[in-house]
Order: sequence, then structure tokens, then C-alpha cells
Amino acid sequence: MRIILVGFGVVGQNIAKLLLSRNEDLYALYGMKPRIVAAVDSGGSAVAASGLDLQRLLDAKKTKGTVAEYGDGQKNVIEIIESMDAEVVVEVTQTNLKTGEPGMTNVSAAIKNGKNVITANKGPLALALPSLIELAEYNGVMLRFSGTVGGGTPILEFAKRCLKGDRIISFRGILNGTTNYILTRMEEGLSFDDALNDAKEKGYAEAEPSLDIDGYDAAAKLVIMANWVMGMKVTMKDVNFTGIRNVTADDMKNALKNHNAIKLIAGSNKGLTVKPTEVPKNDPLCVNGTLNAVTFSSEYSGQQTIIGRGAGGMETASAVLRDLIEIREAMGKV
Amino acid sequence: MRIILVGFGVVGQNIAKLLLSRNEDLYALYGMKPRIVAAVDSGGSAVAASGLDLQRLLDAKKTKGTVAEYGDGQKNVIEIIESMDAEVVVEVTQTNLKTGEPGMTNVSAAIKNGKNVITANKGPLALALPSLIELAEYNGVMLRFSGTVGGGTPILEFAKRCLKGDRIISFRGILNGTTNYILTRMEEGLSFDDALNDAKEKGYAEAEPSLDIDGYDAAAKLVIMANWVMGMKVTMKDVNFTGIRNVTADDMKNALKNHNAIKLIAGSNKGLTVKPTEVPKNDPLCVNGTLNAVTFSSEYSGQQTIIGRGAGGMETASAVLRDLIEIREAMGKV
Repeated sequence: MRIILVGFGVVGQNIAKLLLSRNEDLYALYGMKPRIVAAVDSGGSAVAASGLDLQRLLDAKKTKGTVAEYGDGQKNVIEIIESMDAEVVVEVTQTNLKTGEPGMTNVSAAIKNGKNVITANKGPLALALPSLIELAEYNGVMLRFSGTVGGGTPILEFAKRCLKGDRIISFRGILNGTTNYILTRMEEGLSFDDALNDAKEKGYAEAEPSLDIDGYDAAAKLVIMANWVMGMKVTMKDVNFTGIRNVTADDMKNALKNHNAIKLIAGSNKGLTVKPTEVPKNDPLCVNGTLNAVTFSSEYSGQQTIIGRGAGGMETASAVLRDLIEIREAMGKV
Repeated sequence: MRIILVGFGVVGQNIAKLLLSRNEDLYALYGMKPRIVAAVDSGGSAVAASGLDLQRLLDAKKTKGTVAEYGDGQKNVIEIIESMDAEVVVEVTQTNLKTGEPGMTNVSAAIKNGKNVITANKGPLALALPSLIELAEYNGVMLRFSGTVGGGTPILEFAKRCLKGDRIISFRGILNGTTNYILTRMEEGLSFDDALNDAKEKGYAEAEPSLDIDGYDAAAKLVIMANWVMGMKVTMKDVNFTGIRNVTADDMKNALKNHNAIKLIAGSNKGLTVKPTEVPKNDPLCVNGTLNAVTFSSEYSGQQTIIGRGAGGMETASAVLRDLIEIREAMGKV
């Protein structure tokens, strides 16, 4: 199985580490020999039709800051996608929810070129998932994106595979770990600003935290779930979202008096919404810290909640690997 | 797809209702036309090679107490399993953890006769799952039992399918809803006896509640999970189990002082054990009421918790239907 890896940040590097460490057991368990035939980052590319030496690739990135220092790269990413033989393009560049780029161009090019795509990039999906799914169907390739929701927690697979035969009526959940951490700290008595600063110090929030705290990230994940789980054809513009910037210490105190906590809840009931919502403390959904949680309501098997860390480089890499195995099983051995 | 349904209690009747109500959409979604060609209960049997009229079958049970009143039954269950053409035997007689009967005989006969088996009966599995799995492999048939753990909550599927490509290192969970209800009531201040009586009044506990409160039911589910999830070859005798009979109101008060609750935890770490254990109140596993919850620790994707109701006739029937769909997909259309 030949892979073009586009993006070599935290997730990309963890994918390389995971393939390196699991080389033997992936073959034993799934008859799968994944080879990365090209790796691309913002500094350039590394290319080897017979498969890159992943340790050398990781060393080049670590010591010189780019895969280009590996030695054999030259072409730009689109040329690589169009000219190289590969079964899968793994797109893990950074998420941009305004333009979707560079993910949008990379993902579209790969699909049009007849290559299966795995992405952990929420940008193109949040802005254009219905048309990307259509494009993939038209070109007869698979488009998978398990790592975009829940990090390593298999929320999308759960809905699609484990509840097979049932009908999911609605779902709601905590889809952003940063805001959940901030709200948890506020529950402990901190003001919004102090909790945000604490989240920045811990590395949970960016210096410019708007993507998380204004609800964009949760809204993007809600779009992905609505398309994948409910078969809706929606994008970011169909979500009504509010972040947690205006939640006050007093709001939190009042909620706690009623044995509730305030959580940033994304839900599919009565339209797609993301907003701070009171949740009973003893509801399984009411998890703390950076955890994510989603409750599915299904017609016959009742309500089910799945909880896990919603982020992390290795966790997200493990979701990409699950997608690889799924594509491999659908394709037969290559 | 021809089905022999053995057992027509709450679960069996809900399977009939589910197939009746979803007749059309099962064909549209999965190309599946399930027909129950024989139904058996303790009063006798109903047989129709072209498929029983399920409404008439349910009416016979409701008004006369047995499927035998449907009109066309005669043979005993083993004769039916051996003589009738069918792709699947669904075994949903009552669980007996001492002898495994009548489930053990029914399940073994079906496998030896080359029929796929779906069961929601924990008895044969708790006592002999490793040899039943071997027997099924030898005879080239599938043995599935999603409904035995978690009711409608797809705990077994989650471990096997959603964490594909990862390695589950251990798991622990609350696998019995009755004891969890009793412990939740004790947390609210009731004595063990009062909480047990309340559970009986609510219909959560049997008149003879030993199966639940002495840990047998949780131990049986632990055996099933250990075999299925971890590939262990174990039975009831390999589980070290203690129930909740000796948990006192004082124990609970002391736990709560430390922000913990006492839960009946079944786990795979350091041997297979079921015992009352203090769990932090803010642990996702610490669910209340009749809920079940399991936390899986996996090598790459971290810890994940799945929560849902662990029982219910329709919920368990929905798990049987998931197994039916899986078998149907593995077999091709019939």
C-alpha cells in the first residue's frame, strides 16, 4: 500500500512513528505493508517510489525542520499527487476553517486523480463535505476522516458501525476539549479570563484561541458528524454557533446550584447548534477536563455515550491508521 | 435468511416485533429478508418453512401463553434444529449459569448441524465459550452474542471494530445494572436491604436476586468480554468474584468523603476480578442508576469509555439484529 503523506507536523510525524513501530504486526494482522512513497511539508518534499526510510525522514524533520532535507524531493505537492503511483493520499496539513486551504486543493486533486483520501484536516470537510463526498463517489474512491472528530476516540466509527441496523435519531456532545477544560476550571471557581490563561499555560489553548472558544472548532466537527452520521448535506454556514466567551462565573454558580454544569454542547436536534448549555452533573455526557463525549439517541437500542480524549498527535495518528486498514480491507491486498 | 428462534420470552418476542416493524427497511438497507421458519418456547413450537406470520405468532403467545397455539408445531427443539433448513439459529432461552442449559444443548446442536448461531444467553458462553468458539470454527459457522454484554449498548462491537488497528491493553467496567442501581441508592443514604427492596419494587431485581448481587452476572459478562476482546480462553472458574452484599452504608459514606463512589467493577487487569471498588466521582466510568459503562485502555488511542443501558427486551433484540446483519453480510444474500 503506497501512501503520499501531505503535512508533516505533529500528526504526520506520529503517523510515521506508528507505521515504523508497527511494521511487522500490521503485516501479520492485516496483510498490510504500508509504504510512504512521498512526504510533503511546507519546506518541500521527500520522494522514493520504493518507500521512504521513515527513521531517516523523522531525523531530517527533527534536525533540519523539513522533510526536504531527506534528499530526494523536488516537485510540488500537486505534481506529486498527480504523477506518483499511490493508493492513498493522507492529508494532515493544518486546519483552516475560512478557506479550507491548503487541504481543499490537496484533497480535491487526490480524489480527481483517482486516489483514496484520508484526512485529519477539518477545513475542507467543514466547508465542502457534501460536494467532496459526491466527488469521491463520482471518482470511485474512498474518503475517510476518522481523526477529525474525537482524535483517537472512534466517534464516527461508533455511529456508523456499532449502531448498524439501528436508526440514530439525534446526537449531542462535547466536541472541543479546550473549551471543556476552561469550563471545568470555571466550575472550580476561576473567572473566564483566568481559566483561559491557565489553558494557554497548559498548552490546551492557542495564543489566538478564537477557533476553540468562539465555537468554530466544535461547529466544524458538528458539520462532519451531521454529514457522516445523519446523512445531512450541510456545511459550516448551516450551523448556528455561539462560543463560551460570555459565560460568567455567576452563570456557572447558578448552574451548580441546580446540580448542573455549563458545557459547550453541539447537537443535531432542531437544527445544528453549538451553544453553552446546562447539563445535569450526573448525565454521562457531563465529563470534565479536556475530555470529549457524545450521546447518540437511537430508535431501538436507546441512548449511548462514548467518551475519550478528543485530541493528541498519536491518538489522531491511530485514527488515520484505522482508516488505512478500512481502505486496505475494501481494496484487497496491495 | 431463514431463522429458527429458540426461546420466546421478552427478548424473543421483541425480536419478532422488531422484524415485523422493520421488514421493509431491512430489505432496502441490507437486502435482507429475514423469515422465522420455526419458533420454540417451553410450551412447544410453531413451524412454517415459508416463514411464520409474526403477528399471529405474537398473538398466540399473548393470548394462550405459548407459540404452540400457533397451530403447526410438533417436533422438539433439537429435531427442529437438525431437520429444518435455516441459516441461523437465534437462541434466547433463559440464562442458567450453573448448567448452561437448555442453551448449551441448543447452541451446540445448531453449530454441529452447520448453522450460524446468535445467542443472548450468557449461560453456555460463561461456562464454555472457548470450546464453543472452537466448535464454531471447526464447523465453519459464525457464533455471535452481542446482546449478552451491555444489552443494546454495542460494547463487544466497539472493542472489536472501532478499535481495530489498536491494541486493547485492559478494560474495566460496570457490567450489571441491578447492582449499580442498588449502589446508587445506597449513595443517596439507603441501607443495602432498603436499596435491594427498592430495586425489587422497581422490577430491577429478581425475587431471588443472588445472580446479580453476588456478582455471577457480572462475572459471566467478564468471561465473555475476556474471550472476545482479549482473546483469552477462560470460563467462569477463572474469575475471582465478590458481590455487593457486604457493602455497608458506612463504606459508602467513607468513599463519598474522598469524592469516590463504590461500584461493582469487573476488570481484566491482573487477572479477572469482579469486586466492589472505589471509583472517583469524576471518572467517566462512575455512572449511576441502571447504566452500564466500560473503559478500554488501548495502546495508541488512549482510554475510551462507552456508556448505555445494559438491559431491556427491545435493546437486546436490537443487538440480535446487529448480529443478523453481520452474518448476512458475511454470507452474501440468501
